[in-house]
Amino acid sequence: MACAARFGGPVVMKIVSPDILHKTDAGGVVVGVEGAADVRETFHRIVANARAYAPTARVDGVQVQELLPSGPGAQEVIVGAVTDPTFGKVVAFGLGGVLVEVLKDVTFRLAPVDADEARSMLDSIRAAEVLRGVRGTPGVDRWALAEQIRRVSELVTDFPEIAEVDLNPVVATPEGALAADIRVILAAEAPKERRRYTRAQMLASMRRLMRPRSVAVIGASNEPGKIGNSVMRNLIDGGFPGEIHPVNPKADDILGRKAYKSVTDVPGEVDVAVFAIPAKFVASALEEVGHKGVPNAVLIPSGFAETGEQALQDEIVAIGERHGVRLLGPNIYGYYSTWQDLCATFCTPYDVRGGVALTSQSGGIGMAILGFARATKTGVSAIVGLGNKADLDEDDLLTWFGEDPHTQCIAMHLEDLKDGRAFVEAARATVPKKPVVVLKAGRTAAGAKAAGSHTGALAGDDAVYDDILRQAGVIRAPGLNEMLEYARALPVLPTPQGDNVVIITGAGGSGVLLSDAVTDNGLRLMDIPPDLDAAFRAFIPPFGAAGNPVDITGGEPPSTYEATIRLGLEDPRIHALVLGYWHTIVTPPMVFAELTARVIAEFRERGIDKPVVASLAGDVEVEEACQYLFERGVVAYPYTTEKPVDVLGAKYRWARAAGLLGGGR
Amino acid sequence: MACAARFGGPVVMKIVSPDILHKTDAGGVVVGVEGAADVRETFHRIVANARAYAPTARVDGVQVQELLPSGPGAQEVIVGAVTDPTFGKVVAFGLGGVLVEVLKDVTFRLAPVDADEARSMLDSIRAAEVLRGVRGTPGVDRWALAEQIRRVSELVTDFPEIAEVDLNPVVATPEGALAADIRVILAAEAPKERRRYTRAQMLASMRRLMRPRSVAVIGASNEPGKIGNSVMRNLIDGGFPGEIHPVNPKADDILGRKAYKSVTDVPGEVDVAVFAIPAKFVASALEEVGHKGVPNAVLIPSGFAETGEQALQDEIVAIGERHGVRLLGPNIYGYYSTWQDLCATFCTPYDVRGGVALTSQSGGIGMAILGFARATKTGVSAIVGLGNKADLDEDDLLTWFGEDPHTQCIAMHLEDLKDGRAFVEAARATVPKKPVVVLKAGRTAAGAKAAGSHTGALAGDDAVYDDILRQAGVIRAPGLNEMLEYARALPVLPTPQGDNVVIITGAGGSGVLLSDAVTDNGLRLMDIPPDLDAAFRAFIPPFGAAGNPVDITGGEPPSTYEATIRLGLEDPRIHALVLGYWHTIVTPPMVFAELTARVIAEFRERGIDKPVVASLAGDVEVEEACQYLFERGVVAYPYTTEKPVDVLGAKYRWARAAGLLGGGR
Repeated sequence: MACAARFGGPVVMKIVSPDILHKTDAGGVVVGVEGAADVRETFHRIVANARAYAPTARVDGVQVQELLPSGPGAQEVIVGAVTDPTFGKVVAFGLGGVLVEVLKDVTFRLAPVDADEARSMLDSIRAAEVLRGVRGTPGVDRWALAEQIRRVSELVTDFPEIAEVDLNPVVATPEGALAADIRVILAAEAPKERRRYTRAQMLASMRRLMRPRSVAVIGASNEPGKIGNSVMRNLIDGGFPGEIHPVNPKADDILGRKAYKSVTDVPGEVDVAVFAIPAKFVASALEEVGHKGVPNAVLIPSGFAETGEQALQDEIVAIGERHGVRLLGPNIYGYYSTWQDLCATFCTPYDVRGGVALTSQSGGIGMAILGFARATKTGVSAIVGLGNKADLDEDDLLTWFGEDPHTQCIAMHLEDLKDGRAFVEAARATVPKKPVVVLKAGRTAAGAKAAGSHTGALAGDDAVYDDILRQAGVIRAPGLNEMLEYARALPVLPTPQGDNVVIITGAGGSGVLLSDAVTDNGLRLMDIPPDLDAAFRAFIPPFGAAGNPVDITGGEPPSTYEATIRLGLEDPRIHALVLGYWHTIVTPPMVFAELTARVIAEFRERGIDKPVVASLAGDVEVEEACQYLFERGVVAYPYTTEKPVDVLGAKYRWARAAGLLGGGR
Repeated sequence: MACAARFGGPVVMKIVSPDILHKTDAGGVVVGVEGAADVRETFHRIVANARAYAPTARVDGVQVQELLPSGPGAQEVIVGAVTDPTFGKVVAFGLGGVLVEVLKDVTFRLAPVDADEARSMLDSIRAAEVLRGVRGTPGVDRWALAEQIRRVSELVTDFPEIAEVDLNPVVATPEGALAADIRVILAAEAPKERRRYTRAQMLASMRRLMRPRSVAVIGASNEPGKIGNSVMRNLIDGGFPGEIHPVNPKADDILGRKAYKSVTDVPGEVDVAVFAIPAKFVASALEEVGHKGVPNAVLIPSGFAETGEQALQDEIVAIGERHGVRLLGPNIYGYYSTWQDLCATFCTPYDVRGGVALTSQSGGIGMAILGFARATKTGVSAIVGLGNKADLDEDDLLTWFGEDPHTQCIAMHLEDLKDGRAFVEAARATVPKKPVVVLKAGRTAAGAKAAGSHTGALAGDDAVYDDILRQAGVIRAPGLNEMLEYARALPVLPTPQGDNVVIITGAGGSGVLLSDAVTDNGLRLMDIPPDLDAAFRAFIPPFGAAGNPVDITGGEPPSTYEATIRLGLEDPRIHALVLGYWHTIVTPPMVFAELTARVIAEFRERGIDKPVVASLAGDVEVEEACQYLFERGVVAYPYTTEKPVDVLGAKYRWARAAGLLGGGR
C-alpha cells in the first residue's frame, strides 16, 4: 500500500517468485492499479493466479512499480551487456520493440564506456533519428539514456561475475529513462587470465625479429625442394646483410656456409631461429634455442593445433615461456622484412620496399598477398604469417608496426583474436599515427550465439566485431581484394585536410558513377561556391557543366585537364580530387598521366599535398597510365569508377578515426 | 446515429471539410465514441471545434467510421501508388509507423500487379517477418493485404488521372486489412504519349543495323585524325565483308573506294548510314538518307541535346520519323557487331567474338568497356553506344539481343530510361532466355522527389528503379567493374540446376572467406549428407575438414584436387562448385588449371555441366592460370575470394528470375 502511494499515481504490480519466469503467462502482472482498495484486491488476485499457475512455486511477494510513461515521446529501448569470448565485457544499445528484434538494429562497445562513447551509441543505430524525435514528437533525454548505458558498462566491469545483463525495455522520454525490467545472468565460471607482455617487452623482441643481425636456420638443407633449403636460399638470394647460420647435425656446410650441429654452437648472439624441421623435432630444438638465449623462434612447420596436435603445441608454448622465446607460428610460410632485405620464408624474395605491413593468419591468404604485391608493385615494409598464433599475435605486430618508421599502414587478415582487448588497446595506440586495415574472415558463418539474455541473442559474433573494430578506429575491409587495394593505396595517399571532395571529369558518364561512389562512401561532394564555379567555367566549354562533378567534356585537350586540376589543387577550400579520365585521341592516356603527375609533383614541392584519385576509362593503354600515376602518388584504376573512391573513402575513415578531421568516429 | 449503430461498437468521428486538411489539429477527430447520446454530443463538439479553428471553412458534415482494431496482431502498414516519370503508375507497400519512415523500408512494383506479385511485396520489405507474426503475436491476413495492394494498383491503372494515392495507415490484423485514411491527388496534366514501335518493327530495323550488307559513311575522309577517316579505316581494318560506301561531295575516292557525292547516288540498298559530319550538317544529310530508304542512321556527332541544342535534336528526330529512319545516337562512339566483323566506330576494331552484348549511354563508359574487354579477352557479340537516345534505346536493343543467337547475355550501362514500361516489357521477354545485367548510374544523386503524398516522398528515384528492375528479372550491377565482370563471366558459366553449392579448398583461409562470400550472395552452402562426407574424406588427410567447405589442406598433390573436383561434379546432389586454390610447389598454378579444365571438359562430354568458379591464392603465376581457366569455362580470379562468388551469385539470381530454379523472384 505504502509502496503504491509513494508513486502518487497508477502502478504496475508483479508477482515475485524464483520459480515463475514468465510472469505474464502466470497472470502475475497487472498494469495501471490505482487506489488502496484496488491495490489490495490486485495483490490477492495476483497471488491466487500464481498459485493456480504453479501450485508448488515459492511466492516471495508482489512487487509494486511506477507505471511507466507511454504515448508520444516515449520510446522503448534496450540496454544490456554480455561477456564476449573475444572481447570480454561488451555493452549494447538498441531500440526496443518487434521491429528492432526483426531488423537487429543494435550497437556494441567495449565496456566500460565513458559518457561520450555512450552518447555515440545513440547515433550508431540505423534508426537513430527516432531518438531525436520525428514527425513532431519530441526527442528523448539523450543524457539520461547515455548515463544508463555508461552505468551498465561500469556494473559489468566492476562485477566480472555478471555474464549478461538486460534492461529491457528501458522507457526513454524527453524527461528521462527508466528501466521497466532487468535480467541479470551470473557466469558459471570466471574466464582464465591470459599471459600478457608489456609494451616494452613486445617492442624489444619484435625489434630483434624484424631487424635481426643474425639468423639461424634450424634444419637448413642442401637438398633442393626441402623447406630448409628454400629458406636458406631465400635468405641469401634476398640479400640479407646480416649473419646467416645453417644448423644441421648431419652437414658441415650448407650453400657454402659453415653448418652447426646445434644452435648452441653458433658463435655470438642470434636474434631469430627459423625452424624448418618436422613438428615432432621442434620441442627439443626449441629447448636449445632457449638455452642459446635466442629471443625469437619462427616456426614454419605444420602439424600442431591445426591438425589436432594441441598437446604438442601446448608443449612448445610452455618451452617458449620458460626460456623467454617468443614464437611466430607454428604453421606459417615465414616472414619478410623488406627494409632489411630479409626473406625468411619458403616463398621467393620480395624487394619492393614501401609503407605497408601485411599480416595473415592463413598461408593461402599470405600467398595471395605476395602475388598481388608483386603484380601491382605494392611498396611493402613487411609480410608476416601468423598461422596458429601459439604466441605472437596481432597485438604484438600492431605494437611494433605502430612504432616502425618504415611502416605507414598496417593491413591484417584475421579469423579470430586471441585477446580482443589487447588488440583494441594496440589499435588505439596505433590509429592516431597510421591506418590499420582489418579483413575479418568468418563474419557470416558464426551467426548469433545461444544466449540467455536478449542482448546475448543479438550479439552475433560479427556484429560485436564490427562495432568494436570501428570503435578502435580500425578500417574494416569488406573482402580480400579490398584489403589488398587499401594496403597498396593508403600509404600512397596524403591525408585529407577537410571534407570537400571535387570530381573533375572528361566523361560525364564517369562523373555520374563517381558521384554515386562518393555518396556510397559517405564522402561529401563539395557545394561549389559561385566564385569557384566561375573559375572552373573559365576553362571548360560553354556546354560543359561546372558544379560538382566539374564536367570538362570529352573532346578537351590536355590543357583543360591541367588547368582544372591546377585549380583544384590551388584552391584551399578543396580538400580532395577525384579525376575521371576519358581516353581520346586529343588527350591520350599517357599524356593525361604525365601532366597529372607533373602538376601534382609541382604542388607537392610547394607544400600542397591533397589526396588525388583517378578513374581511367579507355582502351588498354590506360593500364600503363594507371601504374605510372600510382607510382607517383595518384591512386588510379582502369575500368572502374568504384575502386578509386573506395580507397579515398578508406583514407577519410581513418583520418576521422585518427582525429585528424572533424566528425569523430 | 444510424451510421454509428451500424458498426455495433465504438466508432471514430471526423470532421468533413474541404478547407480543413489537418483534422486532428482542428479538434476534428474523436476516437472511441459509443452510444447515441455520446455520438450526438460529439457531433456538436466537432463542428464547434472546427468553427473555432477555421471560422470561414465549409463544413460538409461529420464522418462516422468503424474504430479500427489495435493491440497484438494489429499492424499499421501503408499502401499507395505514385506516377513515376520513368515507369508511370507504380504501387508501393511498407510498414507504417515512425521506424519505417526513418528506415524507408518500402517496396515498389509496376502497376497493375496480380495477386502473386502483390503477395511478393509483403516479403520484399526488410521487416517482412513482422507481418508473419513475431514474439507470439499472430501474423496478419496476407491475402487481404495483398488484395488491397492489387486493388490500389488497378485503381491507378484504370484512372490515369490519379497521380498519387495513399492508404495510410492501413490496419492489418489476422482477420483482415482496413484503411483508416485515404488521400488521393489528381494529376495536373496527362502525360504525353510516346511513339512506340511494334516488336516486329524493332526487329526488322535492328536486324539490318546489326547484320548489314551495305554501309555508307557520310563524311568519309582521307585525312588521318578525322572521325570520317577513322570510321572508314576501322570498317576496312575490322574485315567487314559487306559493302562500304564512302560519301563525300569533295572526293572521288576514299581509302581506295569510290566516293559518292550523296548517299542517294550509292548503288543498291544501304542498311546503315554512319554519320561522321558536324551536327549542323546532319539534318540535310539525314533527309537524303531518308530519301534513299536507309533504315538506320548511326549518328556519331555531338552538338545536340547534350550541349543544349535540343531544337536541332528534335529536328532530326522528326526527319527520322517522317522517313522511317531509326536513329542510333547522336553523340556516340558508334557500334561493334563482332560476328559480322563490323566496327563502325572511331575506336579501333575488336575481334574476340563471344556471347555478351554491351551497351552504354556514355562514351567514356563505352571506352572502359572496350579496354576491359581487350585486357581480359572477353567474348563479345556487340558493343553499342546509345548517347542521347534520340530514338533507338535500351528496349530496341534488348528486343534484338534477346533474339540474336550469338548473344547469351546483355549488359547495359544506363543513366535513365526514356520509357521504363517499354524497357520492363522487353526485359520480361528476354530474361527467360538470357541474363540482362544493368548498371544504373545516378542512383544516389537524385534523392527523394518533392511529392504531395507520403508514398511519393518515399519513392526516391533509385528505390523505384531498384525494385522494378528486380521485378523485371534484371541483375543490377552495383558498379562499373561488376557490370564488366558479369558481362565477361555470365556467358561462360552454365546455368545451375539447383541450390547446393560446395566449396573445395586447398587453403582453409580461403575457405572461410569463400563461405562469407557465399552467404553475402544469398547462396546456400550445401548441408553435406553423411555418405557424401565420407566420400570426400576418403581423399583428404585425416586432419583436413570435410563438411562444407571441403578443406583438402595445403600440401596436397594434384590428385587430391582432381579426386575431390571429380566427386563434386559426379554427385548429382551438388549443383555448383567454388574452388579455392593455394599455390604450392606440390601443385603449381598451371598444373591446377590444367587438371581442372581437363576434368570439367571430360564431364561436359558426358553431359554434366555445372557452374564452377575459382579463387586462386598465390604468386603471379596464378594470373596466367586464371586466364587459362576462364577460356575453358571456369570463372577464375586471382587475389580475390569475392569476385568468383559474386559472379556465381549473379548467375543464380538470373536463374531464379528466369524461373529455372525454385524460389522465384
